[in-house]
Amino acid sequence: MTTAPIDCDLHPTVPSLSALFPYLDEMWREQAIRRGFDEMATIAYPANTPLSVRADWRDAQGMPATTPERLTAEALDPFGTGTAILNCLYGTSAMFSEDIQAAFCKALNDWIAHEWLDRDKRFRASIVIPLTNPEMAVAEIERRAADPRFVQVLMPVSGEIPLGRRQNWPIYAAAERHHLPIGVHAGSTYRHPVTGVGWPGSFTEDYVNQAVGFQSALNSLLAEGVFARFPDLTVVLMESGVSWLPAYMWRFTKFWKGLRSEIPWVSDPPGEILRERVRLTSQPFDAPPDPGGIDRLMNQIGSDEMLLFATDYPHWQFEGNQAVPAGLSAALRHKMMVENPLRTYARLNYAQAGETVP
Amino acid sequence: MTTAPIDCDLHPTVPSLSALFPYLDEMWREQAIRRGFDEMATIAYPANTPLSVRADWRDAQGMPATTPERLTAEALDPFGTGTAILNCLYGTSAMFSEDIQAAFCKALNDWIAHEWLDRDKRFRASIVIPLTNPEMAVAEIERRAADPRFVQVLMPVSGEIPLGRRQNWPIYAAAERHHLPIGVHAGSTYRHPVTGVGWPGSFTEDYVNQAVGFQSALNSLLAEGVFARFPDLTVVLMESGVSWLPAYMWRFTKFWKGLRSEIPWVSDPPGEILRERVRLTSQPFDAPPDPGGIDRLMNQIGSDEMLLFATDYPHWQFEGNQAVPAGLSAALRHKMMVENPLRTYARLNYAQAGETVP
Repeated sequence: MTTAPIDCDLHPTVPSLSALFPYLDEMWREQAIRRGFDEMATIAYPANTPLSVRADWRDAQGMPATTPERLTAEALDPFGTGTAILNCLYGTSAMFSEDIQAAFCKALNDWIAHEWLDRDKRFRASIVIPLTNPEMAVAEIERRAADPRFVQVLMPVSGEIPLGRRQNWPIYAAAERHHLPIGVHAGSTYRHPVTGVGWPGSFTEDYVNQAVGFQSALNSLLAEGVFARFPDLTVVLMESGVSWLPAYMWRFTKFWKGLRSEIPWVSDPPGEILRERVRLTSQPFDAPPDPGGIDRLMNQIGSDEMLLFATDYPHWQFEGNQAVPAGLSAALRHKMMVENPLRTYARLNYAQAGETVP
Repeated sequence: MTTAPIDCDLHPTVPSLSALFPYLDEMWREQAIRRGFDEMATIAYPANTPLSVRADWRDAQGMPATTPERLTAEALDPFGTGTAILNCLYGTSAMFSEDIQAAFCKALNDWIAHEWLDRDKRFRASIVIPLTNPEMAVAEIERRAADPRFVQVLMPVSGEIPLGRRQNWPIYAAAERHHLPIGVHAGSTYRHPVTGVGWPGSFTEDYVNQAVGFQSALNSLLAEGVFARFPDLTVVLMESGVSWLPAYMWRFTKFWKGLRSEIPWVSDPPGEILRERVRLTSQPFDAPPDPGGIDRLMNQIGSDEMLLFATDYPHWQFEGNQAVPAGLSAALRHKMMVENPLRTYARLNYAQAGETVP
């Protein structure tokens, strides 16, 4: 078992839609060409905004790593990373046609398997799924679950419906069955205004609002009873920020005390549920600027098991090699970088290419 | 078999939420009282707007019929109606909690059965369903399907997702299995702006837009392949208006010719599908004002089998007893009032209280 850092959130880039063509079924390759399908790059990360790609990670065309060689050179080697979980944010799950979602998610997962996982033993990946058709989503999870290098199921925080809704439960049942956490990543499929008060007018506003989205998503997962129904399911919040968490736990707990007869299946205090079942990646680390403030934040979270190390490559969340926020204790750094990921991702403990899934 | 007119769309009124209490499970009756549930009257029909209740159908409190006696006196006897299909528009299907939807739809269906269907042999009714949870919706259809007096499944035109979406297909499978048409009625569950360009600012604007909603719903039902997948399913558009139909059929057919490789399951010309599988109730009859114009409209529709007689009581769609638009031929009147309903609603042919469903 590795003791090298485990990077729980970094992003390979699909160079262009045509890179997926070899992995599409013939019908869809032909449709994509004839109908002239556009790039499925998500608008959640506009290419030229500074946050989308850190300046020194841009190539001559402004692109971050589209190959395993560049990704390992820029995002693994500098941090001594022993294992890296690839979350590909290409917009295959955001298409309006469920058929297209299913076809291109399948292609994307197979592209990741052959073009990345086969190329470097340090790579693991999340399974992307057709979001608005749980039946298709479950089929895709089942199709890839035998490959132990897939360690998680990826969903955006803002989809068509709040994550906890019952129609998503078959996805959670499949994830639980295969020891796959649900990785909820920042971003929207843009079915609705991305905030409850309407569409924002700037990328800054949009990006700051992501943390609000995660709180709404957690409200749904908690109140609908997902954690009660799926006792072995873990939810990982990725690129969510972390500093909102204490206030969120306080607030939910307060109103749960007054309103719990409405959601009787939430029988444990919400803070306990969150500490046991929810994990958060460490970048962007939107914490107070001083070590004392960070200490207080960690105390308020009340657990040293919730944070998972991540670079969030290629997003510009930190400078140089300072992927771990300053001000964390050595013990917490080790938990974040090794112990917590190994406890969160069951498959990291047996997932070497070629091994079978228990 | 009756040859008296069959009224395919009229609305009994729930006098107040407490009327449903005897039909609620104990847990929900207790929750409704303790939590102080508000009336579930839909905002689609503001009580005081003239269209919601025709002036001479308002009692001293401004209410339309809340009892079988008043409904038959005001909406059946004056038109010689032999059979009346009750579509209760109370907002049980619009609640955000799927549990509440299911509990109150069940109560509403049982209230209709006991307080209305048991009281007058002329009454039939539509089954209301929890819309956002197809599994619960199917369970409710199955629960009531053995009662032959329920002849249809009721859904609003503007729900959370377009009607054709695959997650709704279990509902259509259950409806087809039990010989129940899907009755799509004007109205929204207000999950989104009720138009594609945003929220309207007046009831007039909202109401005029209903016809646009029906066209969007038909686009979804056609393009997703509902009619191909469920060959015995009929869709009845209620309170949709009828005059938009020819232009809609032309437009869809034109673009289907150019784009049909995208939706290969739509193998028949859309106009043919619509003429065979879709029915529309006759009020509001938003047609040209002159008999010649109505004639041309009927010719353009290209079928005398699509229209179903309806008063749309208590909505103010016509004056006095002129429920059938002037300018229709005697033959078409008869088809609308008797033949077409009997062909549309299979259960009208065997549905006498106490008979078993074949």
